[in-house]
Amino acid sequence: MLLNLNMAELLNPHIQPVELAKAYRLLNHGPTVLVSAQHEQEANVMTAAWACALELVPAKVSVVLDKSTKTRKLIEGSGYFALQVPTLKQIELVQALGSISQFDDPAKLEHCHTPLFHFDGFNLPMVEGCAAWLICELIPEPHNQQVHDLFIGKVVAAYADDRVFRDGHWYYHEADPSWKSVHHVAGGHYYTIGDAVDANKS
Amino acid sequence: MLLNLNMAELLNPHIQPVELAKAYRLLNHGPTVLVSAQHEQEANVMTAAWACALELVPAKVSVVLDKSTKTRKLIEGSGYFALQVPTLKQIELVQALGSISQFDDPAKLEHCHTPLFHFDGFNLPMVEGCAAWLICELIPEPHNQQVHDLFIGKVVAAYADDRVFRDGHWYYHEADPSWKSVHHVAGGHYYTIGDAVDANKS
Repeated sequence: MLLNLNMAELLNPHIQPVELAKAYRLLNHGPTVLVSAQHEQEANVMTAAWACALELVPAKVSVVLDKSTKTRKLIEGSGYFALQVPTLKQIELVQALGSISQFDDPAKLEHCHTPLFHFDGFNLPMVEGCAAWLICELIPEPHNQQVHDLFIGKVVAAYADDRVFRDGHWYYHEADPSWKSVHHVAGGHYYTIGDAVDANKS
Repeated sequence: MLLNLNMAELLNPHIQPVELAKAYRLLNHGPTVLVSAQHEQEANVMTAAWACALELVPAKVSVVLDKSTKTRKLIEGSGYFALQVPTLKQIELVQALGSISQFDDPAKLEHCHTPLFHFDGFNLPMVEGCAAWLICELIPEPHNQQVHDLFIGKVVAAYADDRVFRDGHWYYHEADPSWKSVHHVAGGHYYTIGDAVDANKS
């Protein structure tokens, strides 16, 4: 089921825009992310642990996408992708979307029971229930893509669920634990994000 | 005070080599890292949140280093750097090393009370008390370095403290909480890594 932003907002009024100059904060703590892409009629979502902020202004991100992935082909075709910050309550979805290739299972998204919606103006399959969404325009760099599997994107829109990110800050320490980001180590073993701690006390 | 590995091992027998094929696991959960570099007689350490694994075998990493940093100049001079995974008990050091530039304070490392040692064979100032250390040979890429401030390195040696990482796995969930990695969001606000959670239960 694909919804545009208006419909998504009706269903979830907590989805709020994030100032692009603060979009890096959505990734700064190093969460495992979901990568979405669509080209023509083909849509896919995959899990990636190797995503990172790359520049503050204009906001840019990087993500490593293996040549074996269908999502990579869709991004090369459309020139757009999205990074999303999933939550602990989505961990089985995160694991499934990172374990199954759409090349092997064309109905991967259905088989993983992936709840999707659209932001108005972007032909990208966004995952419902995430904590944050970054919509990115690919900056084509053939060397990085071919040699390093590294894809660079300019963030053109960013959103977060205000129950866990608002006013430019994460509230993992106040939100229900089910909102915590997940950080993959290997083989289905993850850590959640933990406690808030401030430096500069001295 | 700089010690070689033999001396370091005498002081800390918990420092153990990590198989290079598993070195990515040291960074996979997205911790904020310390970046070390030395060129001729000049040594520095800085904090970076934008570091990421880039390839499994041969193990490669990426790290974003602003043109304003002294550490970047040292890496450009020597062709080597190290990424280190600091711990909660080092959070004030992490914050200080990320707030002060050696261009402004040539005695930054002393003023930050940075405890250093050397691994034998590498002329790099390593920070005592970290959970892991990755020694990297710069893969020179002028475009990435100039346009994206992105530095890519091949991991040539990796070590971890076996009280928190051993047999290719993190043990944050069993170790004392002071060993937890720290994940910077912005302005001295961090989250620690949290609880272990496994997917694939279904």
